[in-house]
Amino acid sequence: MTRTQKAPQPARSGRRPGPNSTREDILRAARKCFAELGYDRATFRKIAARADVDPALVVQFFGSKTELFAAASASPVTLVELSAESEQGDPGEAGLRLARLFMAWLEDTDAREAMLARIRSAATEPAAAEMVRQMVMGQLVPFARRIGGANPEARASVLAAQFVGMVWARYVVPLEPLASMSGEEVAHWLGPALQVYLQ
Amino acid sequence: MTRTQKAPQPARSGRRPGPNSTREDILRAARKCFAELGYDRATFRKIAARADVDPALVVQFFGSKTELFAAASASPVTLVELSAESEQGDPGEAGLRLARLFMAWLEDTDAREAMLARIRSAATEPAAAEMVRQMVMGQLVPFARRIGGANPEARASVLAAQFVGMVWARYVVPLEPLASMSGEEVAHWLGPALQVYLQ
Repeated sequence: MTRTQKAPQPARSGRRPGPNSTREDILRAARKCFAELGYDRATFRKIAARADVDPALVVQFFGSKTELFAAASASPVTLVELSAESEQGDPGEAGLRLARLFMAWLEDTDAREAMLARIRSAATEPAAAEMVRQMVMGQLVPFARRIGGANPEARASVLAAQFVGMVWARYVVPLEPLASMSGEEVAHWLGPALQVYLQ
Repeated sequence: MTRTQKAPQPARSGRRPGPNSTREDILRAARKCFAELGYDRATFRKIAARADVDPALVVQFFGSKTELFAAASASPVTLVELSAESEQGDPGEAGLRLARLFMAWLEDTDAREAMLARIRSAATEPAAAEMVRQMVMGQLVPFARRIGGANPEARASVLAAQFVGMVWARYVVPLEPLASMSGEEVAHWLGPALQVYLQ
C-alpha cells in the first residue's frame, strides 16, 4: 500500500490534492482493519497508525466510529450489478454464473475487505448488522423478485446466507481446502447450491 | 438436555452441591454472553454479573478467558450424531433430513448458544476460529467421507459454510423472513442446498 500523506485539513483549497488522498488513505486503512479485526478491535488508534496519520485526524475526518465504518465498508461494486449479469444466458447455469461473478468480485481487494469488514463486524456490532440487512433488502430482494418464483424475500435471505457462509468459511475461519481453492474451484462448489434458489 | 457435569475445580466435599451448580451457573452465563456479545464484549465482569457471582470466582473456576470460552461453547450434542441419523433412509432426501436434524438441534437453547458463541467469537478471536476448524475436521470430514463421493474435505467445508451461513443469517444479523420462520420451514429451504453436497 502506498502512503501519500498530505495536508490534513478537510477544507479543500483546490490547490493541492492532500485532503482527498489523506481521506482515502484513512478509508483504506480502516477497511483493512475492520476486515481483519472486526469492529471492536479496529480502534481509531490502530487505523490511524496504519494510515500513518494522527488519530485526531481520523476523528476530524469521520467524526464517529460508526460513520467511519459505514464509509469504509461501503462496496465499490454492488451485488446487484453482479446479479444482473447472471440473469443473462441459460437459466440452468445461473447459479454457476452468479457464483463466478461473486468470486471475481471478491478478487478485488477493496470489495473483499468491505465484505469482510461487514461480516466480521456484524458478529458483534448492531450497526454493522443493520448494514447487512439493508444490503440484502436493497439488492438481493429485488434480484430475487426479477428472477421470479415464490417468496423473493425468503430466497434473498437464503442466498445471502450462502454468500456469507462461503466468505466466512473461506476467509474468516479460514477452512481448508476452501481457503486455498481458486475462485473458479469455489464457484464450482457454490454454483449448484445457489442454483437451488434461482430456478 | 441432560447435564452430567461433575467434579468442578476445587476438591469436592460431597456434602453440598454448591461448587457444581455454581460452575454450571457460570458456564451457562458465559455461553449466553459469548452467544449474544461475541468473545471481546463478553467480559468476566458481565459473565459474573449474569451468573450472580463474584468475578474472582469466575477466574478461580476457569483461569483464563480462553478456557472459559472452550468450556462454555462446547456443544452438548455433536453434529456427527446428527449426521449419522441423516444417513438412514432415502438418499435423495438426505439433505432435508440433515437440515431437519440441524434445526431441531438448534432448538435446544444450550446447543444454539454454543454454536452462536463460536460463530460470533470466531469473527475476531483466533482461538474460537481454531475450535470451528477442529469441529469441521473432527466431525464433518468423517461424515463426508462416510457418505462417499470425491473430495470429502471440500464437501465438509462447503457443508460447514452452509450451516454457518444459515445460523448467521437467522440469528446473528438477523435477516427476515429467515429469522421468523419455523425450524421446519428453514429446513425446507436449507435441505435442497445441503443435498447438493450429499449425493
